[in-house]
Amino acid sequence: MTGRDGGADIGPIGNSPVVILVRPQMAENIGTTARAMANGGLFHMRIVAPRDGWPQERAWRAASGADRILEAAEVFETVDDAIADLHHVYATCPRPRHIVKPLLTARGGAIELREATNRGLKVGLMFGPERAGLDNEDMARADALIRYPLNPAFMSLNLAQAVMIMAYEWWLTEDSTPPRELMTNETHVATKGELENFMSHLFRELDDCGFLRNEQKRPGMVRNLRHFFTRGEVTEQELRTLHGVVTELVNRRRVR
Amino acid sequence: MTGRDGGADIGPIGNSPVVILVRPQMAENIGTTARAMANGGLFHMRIVAPRDGWPQERAWRAASGADRILEAAEVFETVDDAIADLHHVYATCPRPRHIVKPLLTARGGAIELREATNRGLKVGLMFGPERAGLDNEDMARADALIRYPLNPAFMSLNLAQAVMIMAYEWWLTEDSTPPRELMTNETHVATKGELENFMSHLFRELDDCGFLRNEQKRPGMVRNLRHFFTRGEVTEQELRTLHGVVTELVNRRRVR
Repeated sequence: MTGRDGGADIGPIGNSPVVILVRPQMAENIGTTARAMANGGLFHMRIVAPRDGWPQERAWRAASGADRILEAAEVFETVDDAIADLHHVYATCPRPRHIVKPLLTARGGAIELREATNRGLKVGLMFGPERAGLDNEDMARADALIRYPLNPAFMSLNLAQAVMIMAYEWWLTEDSTPPRELMTNETHVATKGELENFMSHLFRELDDCGFLRNEQKRPGMVRNLRHFFTRGEVTEQELRTLHGVVTELVNRRRVR
Repeated sequence: MTGRDGGADIGPIGNSPVVILVRPQMAENIGTTARAMANGGLFHMRIVAPRDGWPQERAWRAASGADRILEAAEVFETVDDAIADLHHVYATCPRPRHIVKPLLTARGGAIELREATNRGLKVGLMFGPERAGLDNEDMARADALIRYPLNPAFMSLNLAQAVMIMAYEWWLTEDSTPPRELMTNETHVATKGELENFMSHLFRELDDCGFLRNEQKRPGMVRNLRHFFTRGEVTEQELRTLHGVVTELVNRRRVR
């Protein structure tokens, strides 16, 4: 998964935002950035004036298999060169600046980038050097700034972490996974009839062993057990296990 | 910002989800995880059976100032011990499993954790060891699994990156930053009157220099310039600059 030959198949590469790393310092961060990009489906990297030159072996070692992104990365001397063929460029900006500029959240930015991409425009996302961030000249070339909503008391964000959040938000703009679902695999969510069948079995045995002998309390106790068993989804397979549990406990009692 | 004495003020620490690192291997990853937690306002770390023992200097060096989280971290021998006082526990699970369990997105999980926390419940988020992830016994102790929607062709996620996404989503559950706004600082968005005032100045000078001399084309040309100047918000300060630009260009012409 590492080394200059090979790397993982990172999926189909389409028209996605170009990630522009401006004057990055550490080759390792360029590698971890490539990994984060692959996680979120961003495949185009441009590097402006990397401090230690390019290519650098340490980037490949840190990329955990996202080699294709590093191999296709383009190097430019200036931001102007790197963005010349793009239609929209957004700049990430962790610290407040005293400028007049549209300011977006990560989510807001990702949605706008997706909309522009869907219109066939080429868009870019600029990230500044590790310590200083983008300078005022870089920022003046961007259409808008993106600032992540994060703990204002602790904003220190690693370069790859910053890229990860935008890559994640980019992926989400086309994701439709339901926020919650029950994985059931081979079995299925039990129907009310299947559940009732189990509860009847349970109540029958509880009557038989005397647990429900108090006539006055019986309806309430039965209802409480119903409340418990209807609180979450249960699968048909789990009901079969529960039938077995009841049967076995009863048999053990009878043996004794 | 580093070292065992001090660290940054990371903000007020309330009832937020406990991050449970199960059998983590690299102390450095525990440190970068603390940093990611601080970014998103997660302050409570528990560590189950860390491979190389605890505390470890390398964690502090990697935490970029999130020392308070490391100093308050609690160590446990088993997952059962680490979760005994919690009410809900969610487990992150990158790979599909063959189990019957509710499956949430990162966002869905963060919202449910926030709701439970708001009800006064103590909740936890389990993350597995770097390579293998959580095992089946760990997973059986969780109320639900969380799987991030990310590029299925490249799911390799660093531990701190995985924590970063949940920390970010946790922070977002209480964030109300507008997705787009114009930072204007000392100035303000220009009113239509202020804009009209500038455009009149421009058209007057364009009439004067003959640029709009074609009577038939004049209305269309004026409208096109209006379309351009109304496309985005402009500030009162920028209009003053533009007035100056027009005046100076005119003066230069007159001098020539």
